[in-house]
Amino acid sequence: MKNAYEKLKAKFERIYRLGHLESIAWWDEATMMPEGGSEARAKAMAEVRLVQQEILSSPETREQIETAKQMDLDEWDRANVLRMERSVRLTSSITPELLTASSLANARCEQSWRMLRKENNWTEFLPLFEETVKLARETARQRGDALELAPYDAMLETYSPGVTTKTVERVFTELRSFLPDFIKKAEAKQQPFLQPQGRFPIEAQKNLGLETMKKIGFDFNHGRLDVSTHPFCGGVAEDTRITTRYNEEDFTSSLMGVIHETGHAHYAQNTVPGYETQPVGSECGMAIHESQSLFWEMQIARSPTFLKMLQPAIVEKLGPCDRSEFFTADNLYRLFAEVKRGYIRVDADEVTYPAHVILRFEIEKDLIEGKMQVKDLPEVWDQKMMTYLGLSTKGNFKDGCMQDVHWPSGGFGYFPSYTLGALIAAQLFAALEKAHPHVRDQIARGDFSQVREWLKKNVWHKGSLHTTEALVEKATGEPLNVGYFKRHLERRYLQ
Amino acid sequence: MKNAYEKLKAKFERIYRLGHLESIAWWDEATMMPEGGSEARAKAMAEVRLVQQEILSSPETREQIETAKQMDLDEWDRANVLRMERSVRLTSSITPELLTASSLANARCEQSWRMLRKENNWTEFLPLFEETVKLARETARQRGDALELAPYDAMLETYSPGVTTKTVERVFTELRSFLPDFIKKAEAKQQPFLQPQGRFPIEAQKNLGLETMKKIGFDFNHGRLDVSTHPFCGGVAEDTRITTRYNEEDFTSSLMGVIHETGHAHYAQNTVPGYETQPVGSECGMAIHESQSLFWEMQIARSPTFLKMLQPAIVEKLGPCDRSEFFTADNLYRLFAEVKRGYIRVDADEVTYPAHVILRFEIEKDLIEGKMQVKDLPEVWDQKMMTYLGLSTKGNFKDGCMQDVHWPSGGFGYFPSYTLGALIAAQLFAALEKAHPHVRDQIARGDFSQVREWLKKNVWHKGSLHTTEALVEKATGEPLNVGYFKRHLERRYLQ
Repeated sequence: MKNAYEKLKAKFERIYRLGHLESIAWWDEATMMPEGGSEARAKAMAEVRLVQQEILSSPETREQIETAKQMDLDEWDRANVLRMERSVRLTSSITPELLTASSLANARCEQSWRMLRKENNWTEFLPLFEETVKLARETARQRGDALELAPYDAMLETYSPGVTTKTVERVFTELRSFLPDFIKKAEAKQQPFLQPQGRFPIEAQKNLGLETMKKIGFDFNHGRLDVSTHPFCGGVAEDTRITTRYNEEDFTSSLMGVIHETGHAHYAQNTVPGYETQPVGSECGMAIHESQSLFWEMQIARSPTFLKMLQPAIVEKLGPCDRSEFFTADNLYRLFAEVKRGYIRVDADEVTYPAHVILRFEIEKDLIEGKMQVKDLPEVWDQKMMTYLGLSTKGNFKDGCMQDVHWPSGGFGYFPSYTLGALIAAQLFAALEKAHPHVRDQIARGDFSQVREWLKKNVWHKGSLHTTEALVEKATGEPLNVGYFKRHLERRYLQ
Repeated sequence: MKNAYEKLKAKFERIYRLGHLESIAWWDEATMMPEGGSEARAKAMAEVRLVQQEILSSPETREQIETAKQMDLDEWDRANVLRMERSVRLTSSITPELLTASSLANARCEQSWRMLRKENNWTEFLPLFEETVKLARETARQRGDALELAPYDAMLETYSPGVTTKTVERVFTELRSFLPDFIKKAEAKQQPFLQPQGRFPIEAQKNLGLETMKKIGFDFNHGRLDVSTHPFCGGVAEDTRITTRYNEEDFTSSLMGVIHETGHAHYAQNTVPGYETQPVGSECGMAIHESQSLFWEMQIARSPTFLKMLQPAIVEKLGPCDRSEFFTADNLYRLFAEVKRGYIRVDADEVTYPAHVILRFEIEKDLIEGKMQVKDLPEVWDQKMMTYLGLSTKGNFKDGCMQDVHWPSGGFGYFPSYTLGALIAAQLFAALEKAHPHVRDQIARGDFSQVREWLKKNVWHKGSLHTTEALVEKATGEPLNVGYFKRHLERRYLQ
């Protein structure tokens, strides 16, 4: 006879198995599915989610969780029960009426946004977005009640366990006082480079991407690389699917994109042995997830050490040799360390990126808390862009407040993960270097065993045992500290 | 408040939605999945099937079916309830112990077969296959009890509703007396042709396949073409995925393969309006399904009319023009009408194909009914190959009784569908020509509207309203009649 905890584990394994099909179908939708399949796909996805919800929200499951919380379990199993409880609470935190209303409103708003953004049409977007914000406020309120958190904190918690407004405020305040001045210094210090000219065939870029993935340890027996409009890391731990997009005039974005997604994939592929199918065995949340992609992209791949190591492969895959002046290790490094203020977050370098995120955090917090009216968004956006990056977006909605898919689709509370991830990545790399002072020499030889082993031990195989900040502290020996990110930027851009 | 039938419809819509994910994941497994993903995939598939089974086999579902059978419903809804009942019976016909035992034994046998076939190793295969046959016998017995059918009839019924040993015996007896003599005559009458030489790049073959699919009306907004080891038609009605395989030395098999699978896809894509998610709304079974693929491949695509119409596209996609002697309409027709006795079923032409199927039907029936011992299989196979095709397979297990995946994986009762499909295809085409005497002129112009409309009305949009033979009779005005197939062969191979 199974006890309550064993029964719960079996239920969560079912959720995991059904989630496998959901993840693969989601990947298929973004990479393979013909347009006409979308309605049936949406219904199939809704159905499997309903089955999962039925399992999670049954009174029996709740009782089993109460029983399991009283049981004498070890650290991992105790954490697993808490993660189960969080899942159940998140699943049942929203009334079915609100869930339906916001699914519909968000789908409508996101769909219209695709067209209206292109048309720079704020006027028609506004009423749709007002509805989305209204329902997001109510969602945040209901979720906050269920999790015993303030509304915006409940949204943050959804993406990154344990992260609160207080944490975000603390680190963003420090960045706010550091960044504007630093950006100017970095721009002034910037060294000229040759912008690679010519055509870089997709096949060649793909081969370079695959070769690079292999070098840094992507497990092709449990994953693959494909193409999608918006790059992502999806699939499942046992079969992780990353994507990129190719521009034949520019190989840099697909190369760094592939490395970025491989960072996510390392984390996704390395679930906790013995807990692979359980909530505690998989990734901790989006801030840590972003720290993994940025660890590989920003800390490792854009470093002079890595680019020097990769340079022969770049030449081999993207040559011919009359392009050799672009492909010196030195030019590559300068190219990949360009700092340039711009309107668009997804195109931003690591120096200006936090400014984009801080702006969004300030705005979405006020929107969710009802301190700001949706109609004032363009003006507030413009003011903040002027303050942080000195750029005006007056009348330019499409490159301003309408640029991201997150808000139109109801995704509030996600943005801070990007910058928390960048900070955590810098802190993790510093801790790695402290543990292995010669790790850069290994990287120079194309050997990533120490890097991987350290991440596996301190991050990947911790799964969801800790909340976000606790994981950082356990891995690095100190609480989240903006200093490491600042030092990383100073070293890369001012020296 | 919903009545019992409406509740059943809602349940079967859930089954359909979950089946969507299962089908897409199955396609993914055959076309995209890296090997290391297979174990997790198998478990995910098992889980979603279990959810479906739980819905189907609940006592509540059975009660609702009993109630619905007493309700005053129209013809389609009545048929739908009967289809639901059949699903429930098939799902719960096997004891869980037997289901587990045969899943395991079949997986083990099929897995070993992949290697042992290559090694021509009958000795090691025998004990594994004996276990598979033993469990298949018991499965047939239990399923027969549940469906009130004889054991082998229950296996036939699983694939093609309403088809019994009696039907198969009747038509196969007629073929047995016709074929051996006919094969000799066709061989004697055969006209020489030039075998296309050279390299036909995969990309060119793919473009020819896509162009041909477009011509015959494949809906690319609801489907796609990919590559897999074993070609198939999968996916769902709203998003039908067909596959082929390419051999750069031979374009003929991918071209006819693509047309064959497009025939399946037409049927799969055209479910019954208003009943898309219900058992009665989808395809009737495998004999009718094969009739659709063979209708397009054998009745249409290998005809001189079609090949003459397609010839310019073949030249355009596969040229250059120094190959023009291969690509005359006349040479193409002779090439695609080659008759050649061989060991391998999947490589057989339409004249010798039924001999392969009759042999398998006779053997699998005796195996299931316990009239034959597994160890005697190679000898019986050899005798029958000598009788039907004059070829000896003594000692050649891999091209003899070990050639197909069906039996090692527990698939008994499927083989007759192939030849029933060929017979039905000929009968349907004759009925089409009777209704539209000038349909060949349309085909000659690359216009398939009459063909498609007639099939839609008489086959596709009949869904599973009738059982196999009743559908043939309603569509053509007479019971299944081998005469049409014989006349088709005589016209193509003896004139």
